[in-house]
Amino acid sequence: MTVRGRFITFEGSEGVGKSTQITNAAETLKELGIDCIVTREPGGTPLAEAIREVLLSPRDESVNDLTELLLMFAARAQHLHTLILPALEKGQWVLCDRFTDATFAYQGGGRGVPSERIALLETLVQGEMRPDHVVLLDAPVETGMMRARHRGQLDRFEQETVSFFQRIRDTYLVRADAEPSRYNIVDAAGSLEQVSTHIRELMCKFGSDLL
Amino acid sequence: MTVRGRFITFEGSEGVGKSTQITNAAETLKELGIDCIVTREPGGTPLAEAIREVLLSPRDESVNDLTELLLMFAARAQHLHTLILPALEKGQWVLCDRFTDATFAYQGGGRGVPSERIALLETLVQGEMRPDHVVLLDAPVETGMMRARHRGQLDRFEQETVSFFQRIRDTYLVRADAEPSRYNIVDAAGSLEQVSTHIRELMCKFGSDLL
Repeated sequence: MTVRGRFITFEGSEGVGKSTQITNAAETLKELGIDCIVTREPGGTPLAEAIREVLLSPRDESVNDLTELLLMFAARAQHLHTLILPALEKGQWVLCDRFTDATFAYQGGGRGVPSERIALLETLVQGEMRPDHVVLLDAPVETGMMRARHRGQLDRFEQETVSFFQRIRDTYLVRADAEPSRYNIVDAAGSLEQVSTHIRELMCKFGSDLL
Repeated sequence: MTVRGRFITFEGSEGVGKSTQITNAAETLKELGIDCIVTREPGGTPLAEAIREVLLSPRDESVNDLTELLLMFAARAQHLHTLILPALEKGQWVLCDRFTDATFAYQGGGRGVPSERIALLETLVQGEMRPDHVVLLDAPVETGMMRARHRGQLDRFEQETVSFFQRIRDTYLVRADAEPSRYNIVDAAGSLEQVSTHIRELMCKFGSDLL
């Protein structure tokens, strides 16, 4: 019988080093002999990436908050049912750059969409399915924004204000504090070596639960 | 005080002549001195048209039913809040090629998405807002499909089967029968002149309610 894979999401605001640390996490799991795939939200399939493009493109037209929320969950429904769930069923671990916590943080905390609306769509799209582990890369807003701005062209979200990102960070931390068994806060303001070590330790811990 | 405009939607399966008859309806209203705009779903704003493009493009990837449903309502939220509601508030009448009845017909009747799921999103996006008048252009499925296929390149919906379109027609008719005060069934299998006359009569009736 195939044991279902684990679903691990990486969360955090702009510039906290998610991409680097997901690569690091995947390498650690592979060293442990665990088959894993890396994906991202919004995106992960050609259709979901097309929705990502619609969501992130800077545009003159003001984007309705509900439109943004529904687009996020449209991409998520496609990603979940086409890629994530089939991989988990095959026994693969799935490492995902952002998931529904990001919707609560960005559209909820950031835009002010009531969390009940987000929870309603979460249940519609995911049923009871939640990530097995959430890795929250946390850093002061100024640190993250400074790093993100060095990357060049900013997308529609990266163009937002400091207070927008402060509300995002606060929402993430409140969610992590409420469910410490599933959330792991990693101090992303430290040196690259410190953060990488912390991530490798977490992956070893998740992997050792299998034994 | 500005009197709120009327919201009139035109529904029906492929090839029933909606585009022609919306133009006819708009001309009739203008002759009556009523300021009106013509729009369509999915679409009606640049962002909603970008979502339409994602929805209608033929693609290799199988589109999850829930993804399709959420994309439809994402486009609708943008269209409603950016274009339709502001126009109605200004006193303009809005003629719209398809609206939520099409979602009940295509995603509900056609794809088999439970109508409770559609109703949940309808309430989320529209609250209590519903079209003032729905004009249902009804024709046997074979008639409509024959006409649609003469138009050339088929989109992702037009490529569906006869039974898919039969379920769509049935769903439309059930909805129209349930609420005859708001729905107007027009026999679209008749001659162009007969259908056009019927549409002009309906617009005169809607317009005369103002007096």
